[in-house]
Amino acid sequence: MRAASDLARLIVSCPDRHGIIATLSACLAGNGANIVTSDQHSTDPEKGAFFLRMEFHLAELEKRRSELEEQLASIAREFKMHWRLTPANEKKRVAVFVSRHEHCMLDLLWRWRRKELDIDVVAVVSNHPDLETEVARFGVPYYHHPVSSTTKAQAEQQTLDLLGGGVDVIVLARYMQILSGDFLREIDAPVINIHHSFLPAFAGADSHARAYERGVKLIGATAHYVTEDLDEGPIIEQGVSRVSHRQDVDELVRLGRDIERMVLARAVRWHIEDRILVHGSRTIVFR
Amino acid sequence: MRAASDLARLIVSCPDRHGIIATLSACLAGNGANIVTSDQHSTDPEKGAFFLRMEFHLAELEKRRSELEEQLASIAREFKMHWRLTPANEKKRVAVFVSRHEHCMLDLLWRWRRKELDIDVVAVVSNHPDLETEVARFGVPYYHHPVSSTTKAQAEQQTLDLLGGGVDVIVLARYMQILSGDFLREIDAPVINIHHSFLPAFAGADSHARAYERGVKLIGATAHYVTEDLDEGPIIEQGVSRVSHRQDVDELVRLGRDIERMVLARAVRWHIEDRILVHGSRTIVFR
Amino acid sequence: MRAASDLARLIVSCPDRHGIIATLSACLAGNGANIVTSDQHSTDPEKGAFFLRMEFHLAELEKRRSELEEQLASIAREFKMHWRLTPANEKKRVAVFVSRHEHCMLDLLWRWRRKELDIDVVAVVSNHPDLETEVARFGVPYYHHPVSSTTKAQAEQQTLDLLGGGVDVIVLARYMQILSGDFLREIDAPVINIHHSFLPAFAGADSHARAYERGVKLIGATAHYVTEDLDEGPIIEQGVSRVSHRQDVDELVRLGRDIERMVLARAVRWHIEDRILVHGSRTIVFR
Amino acid sequence: MRAASDLARLIVSCPDRHGIIATLSACLAGNGANIVTSDQHSTDPEKGAFFLRMEFHLAELEKRRSELEEQLASIAREFKMHWRLTPANEKKRVAVFVSRHEHCMLDLLWRWRRKELDIDVVAVVSNHPDLETEVARFGVPYYHHPVSSTTKAQAEQQTLDLLGGGVDVIVLARYMQILSGDFLREIDAPVINIHHSFLPAFAGADSHARAYERGVKLIGATAHYVTEDLDEGPIIEQGVSRVSHRQDVDELVRLGRDIERMVLARAVRWHIEDRILVHGSRTIVFR
Repeated sequence: MRAASDLARLIVSCPDRHGIIATLSACLAGNGANIVTSDQHSTDPEKGAFFLRMEFHLAELEKRRSELEEQLASIAREFKMHWRLTPANEKKRVAVFVSRHEHCMLDLLWRWRRKELDIDVVAVVSNHPDLETEVARFGVPYYHHPVSSTTKAQAEQQTLDLLGGGVDVIVLARYMQILSGDFLREIDAPVINIHHSFLPAFAGADSHARAYERGVKLIGATAHYVTEDLDEGPIIEQGVSRVSHRQDVDELVRLGRDIERMVLARAVRWHIEDRILVHGSRTIVFR
Repeated sequence: MRAASDLARLIVSCPDRHGIIATLSACLAGNGANIVTSDQHSTDPEKGAFFLRMEFHLAELEKRRSELEEQLASIAREFKMHWRLTPANEKKRVAVFVSRHEHCMLDLLWRWRRKELDIDVVAVVSNHPDLETEVARFGVPYYHHPVSSTTKAQAEQQTLDLLGGGVDVIVLARYMQILSGDFLREIDAPVINIHHSFLPAFAGADSHARAYERGVKLIGATAHYVTEDLDEGPIIEQGVSRVSHRQDVDELVRLGRDIERMVLARAVRWHIEDRILVHGSRTIVFR
Repeated sequence: MRAASDLARLIVSCPDRHGIIATLSACLAGNGANIVTSDQHSTDPEKGAFFLRMEFHLAELEKRRSELEEQLASIAREFKMHWRLTPANEKKRVAVFVSRHEHCMLDLLWRWRRKELDIDVVAVVSNHPDLETEVARFGVPYYHHPVSSTTKAQAEQQTLDLLGGGVDVIVLARYMQILSGDFLREIDAPVINIHHSFLPAFAGADSHARAYERGVKLIGATAHYVTEDLDEGPIIEQGVSRVSHRQDVDELVRLGRDIERMVLARAVRWHIEDRILVHGSRTIVFR
Repeated sequence: MRAASDLARLIVSCPDRHGIIATLSACLAGNGANIVTSDQHSTDPEKGAFFLRMEFHLAELEKRRSELEEQLASIAREFKMHWRLTPANEKKRVAVFVSRHEHCMLDLLWRWRRKELDIDVVAVVSNHPDLETEVARFGVPYYHHPVSSTTKAQAEQQTLDLLGGGVDVIVLARYMQILSGDFLREIDAPVINIHHSFLPAFAGADSHARAYERGVKLIGATAHYVTEDLDEGPIIEQGVSRVSHRQDVDELVRLGRDIERMVLARAVRWHIEDRILVHGSRTIVFR
């Protein structure tokens, strides 16, 4: 039997050219690794961008990792690759940001407790105190960092002091504050948001009221990486639900909650399994 | 057995108030009608708008129709109703407008031939000659009314001369010209369009290219009534299909065709069965 | 403004015939009620079965209920109706049965706490002690009634003693014991189950393993009323999720959990809103 | 620019072991090929079955094909591979079998004419004469091979004489006869069927009537490879559509037609693009 600790993922992006897969798989095979899954995508075989995700077993991975990484680094120089190697059992450290709506956060915490999400939840950060008791039940520390128009920079600094360097990904589980460009640069970790509309329709606030007003027949939710351009970051996943004239705005909000929970959970799962590669304003999701 | 010719639909909209259903169903029952289906919707029981669709059997409908209509007219005055009574076997006269993409038109003609759509297709009008032979096979007259920037008003007049007063609904089955406000007023019949995006996202042209660029994970199509505000008319039906990074623009277009066909066919079916009531910018669809 | 306590539902089933809606709506109107929504279905206007659900406002409902019910009873005799009148603010008493899988139960309790489900959760009954702490957090009493092959009748009696007469509906939220016909008769309340397959496919146990083996491309879940015939009761709601060769049985189970939660929650919602009427082996769901 | 004629697909299945991808990609790279897409699947990295599909460009493919195939054959011997190499521009020869329902056949012919399906339609074979005129319009030969209980063997022989060796895949587009095991062995080409239910539910005949009777809330269709065990062949694709108590059997049949058309078209597309590998009773679909 192979040990779970010997499973790793190799994530690569580079300009497409002849011989990438051959070179990488030869390197892995030469080290005795067995490729378990391999996904690749090229935006254009001629001068396009190339993306690859390989999962492989390598006996005594930990011991042999640095040697393998040296070889990969050498290949990467030749092929101008961005790359990383992630042991599959290296849990990502996740901070969840939330305001008052608990549904997305609770869903993530349940999945985590049920071992559906193989992560470390290091903190829940909120601009409100409301959910402290609920979070405490999961044994996760809760930080109340209130934000007002005058204290925003301060609050963000407080959060940076708390999390800086100690978090691999931030999940905005219905966090109703806009993170500044400074914060995003400083935290230097990907931030996943769930937006309560089928982007790019109804970007911004009040999306359900506007969807109702427009009379759409499907409502949706969108998980995306956060960039400085509000609601414009690369889309990870979207979901929809059929609605009719019978649903008023309150019911759209209620239905929306279920879509949000599901869509965000999928996005987080794919992220922590290193399945998502960003290419400009788009994502490649190997699933 | 009841005759199909004795089936009719009563469509009503009025300010909501006490006693509407009781009054109307008493009137129908008093005439010996049997209500087969009844759907109603109120935007707000207090001072909202009320909408109703009833299907009923009435023996010897044709003979007794005028008497029933007189009674309904009297009720309508009292309740400030907009209403109409439609015998179910009175086929709606449909004109299909198309440019060069045949898929939506073919799907409609095929459903019509197969008796899935109980309509009279009185004409296919196109700004291109390409599909004449194909349409001829269905025994439907094809009118080629070319449109250029300088001849648009003339072309629209040509179409008005052809169809004026002789058509109950126009279906734009991928018709790539914008109908003028004058045309819409003159033709005085509802016009259904199929838009190749999940409105309000990607309204306008090139929606698949823009959807690709934005990296959405679902693409869609929207059937809506045409108003002077381009792509802003009341939405009748929408559909979506999952896509991923693997699909390029051409494949989005191909997938889009299937959604367009299905969504437009549903919208046309609901329209000809008098299932759609327009309320401002929204539709009530009783189905 | 109308009081929420003045909202009621009238549920009717009877042989279809002339004048049902007219008679009922006249009765309601005569009492000053205002019909808010009305849904009806007939399996066949000639000698079929007729089903109706009306929601109406009646000022001072509580005071005037008995008089209205007398009139309805008289109509019911004439039309051979089964009927009931339910004040909308009369919360249904719900008992949740669960074994070890918490996801469906948690989802229901969370929706209840969030006021998405307007019910009284009177008890959680389980054949295992595992979820006691979790349930305690919601302030709901937890009863551990262990079941073995030899003690089944005894355990069921224990549950009957606990709940008899005090529960309006039982929800089996992944309860892994089969309820006996005797129990179902004695408890005399509808029982809703969630089955982890797209019934009638893969009825019985191990449905995900069998779905994997058969190589289906969609997996599902089914909420149904429980009858003595295992997995044969009237279907209330079903949902599906796309799968591929990439998902192993464990992942089907994981995906299945999300479908189960959503499908069961919809079924429970519709039940407590009196939207479901049973007709033989089928359900009419007015939604 | 690379020529379309230089694009090929390598399809491989073999016992999983160390080094397969490395060996194959080295072989391709050594020949100057550029891998465009690569998909692989392993049922179990330890002693499981391994499946791979690679698309690659190789300049002057036709000239260099035999040399490449020799090298691949040698690798195949070592790894105990089943394999084939298919130039992408080598159109598959397709025969469509149909009885009286034209919807699936028409949809395929439309897609073919519109160049959505890059195939050669060599024949339509039917046990009825009804669709001859319709098929003639597409310029496809129509063969009427009537089948009765006593002439079945004869009719199958007639079809074998017609198609033997000249067809790459047979599509049963609502063909209402069961093909004998002898026919399947003799024709020695994969046969794709569309079944009008969500298999394994409602296998056999009258599936819509049985679905109605059972009161399911979703109906479906299933495309599968035909084996001697009726309705038991490996499933390629499935689709569903939501239904309610409002739809009678006729409407289920009508809705079913749309699902059948879409599901069969996807299955045929994936087959002709060599995306489907059969593994026992299941399929791997690389898409």
